[in-house]
Amino acid sequence: MKNKVLMAALAIATGAVSFQVCAQVKPETLVKQRQAAMTLQGKYFGPIGAMVQGKAPYDAAIVTRNAGYLEALSKMPWDGFNESTASVKETDAKPEIYKNTDKFRSEAQKLETETAKLAAAARSGDQAAVKTAFGDVAQACKACHDDFRVKR
Amino acid sequence: MKNKVLMAALAIATGAVSFQVCAQVKPETLVKQRQAAMTLQGKYFGPIGAMVQGKAPYDAAIVTRNAGYLEALSKMPWDGFNESTASVKETDAKPEIYKNTDKFRSEAQKLETETAKLAAAARSGDQAAVKTAFGDVAQACKACHDDFRVKR
Repeated sequence: MKNKVLMAALAIATGAVSFQVCAQVKPETLVKQRQAAMTLQGKYFGPIGAMVQGKAPYDAAIVTRNAGYLEALSKMPWDGFNESTASVKETDAKPEIYKNTDKFRSEAQKLETETAKLAAAARSGDQAAVKTAFGDVAQACKACHDDFRVKR
Repeated sequence: MKNKVLMAALAIATGAVSFQVCAQVKPETLVKQRQAAMTLQGKYFGPIGAMVQGKAPYDAAIVTRNAGYLEALSKMPWDGFNESTASVKETDAKPEIYKNTDKFRSEAQKLETETAKLAAAARSGDQAAVKTAFGDVAQACKACHDDFRVKR
């Protein structure tokens, strides 16, 4: 009974989202989820950029919060790049991702590593270190996008 | 010069996403970002549900990871519910959000609180506590969706 209540609440809460532990997730769902992770990385990365470049007042609390969010978000897109998604049309992901998987994984790992450094720099309160780390994250984004994202 | 390189890398990396610190963010972008946070909450909440209900083998490492992600994600949607988005068509958010703001904020806060408890339960390794906290998060989702999300 408790389980049924939980299950019903969950189905309503999540729109009966697939359970990625026990079920095959639809390719379209995987694409939507990985794009969501990219969207939120943009949301929280952009303001740090504005601040380290002097386009907005530096707010250490926001930088630390955003960098902490980014540390988690940087780990979220990758399991969405499953070969089952290669035929999904609504994506800028190049099919090379599924041919040159080692390079893709290495570039994804680079983003995670540089983002963790950004979060550490933010926590340390060292504004110059944040600026350097921000640039390194931006380069990691760019490297992977250059290789594996369709240019628009 | 360094700034220009950073700026160019950032623009390429993020698709020139708006800087939410210093600029008015387009309503459509706010909707996309808050929906992204909801999508990812579904991604990481669903598997915990499957596990606490015995539909998938309990994996404490995944539960802890997901609950940690959810603790961050539970804080991300709310600044996207700006009144400027009331006229955006592609959303299930009810206009009541901008009329009954105190209730909306209270229900959003409830989700954050319950999700933090879920993350703490996961870290403690107490599987029964995780199950209880999972149910409380699901109820918090449902309460807010019942009040402020269009039924489909």
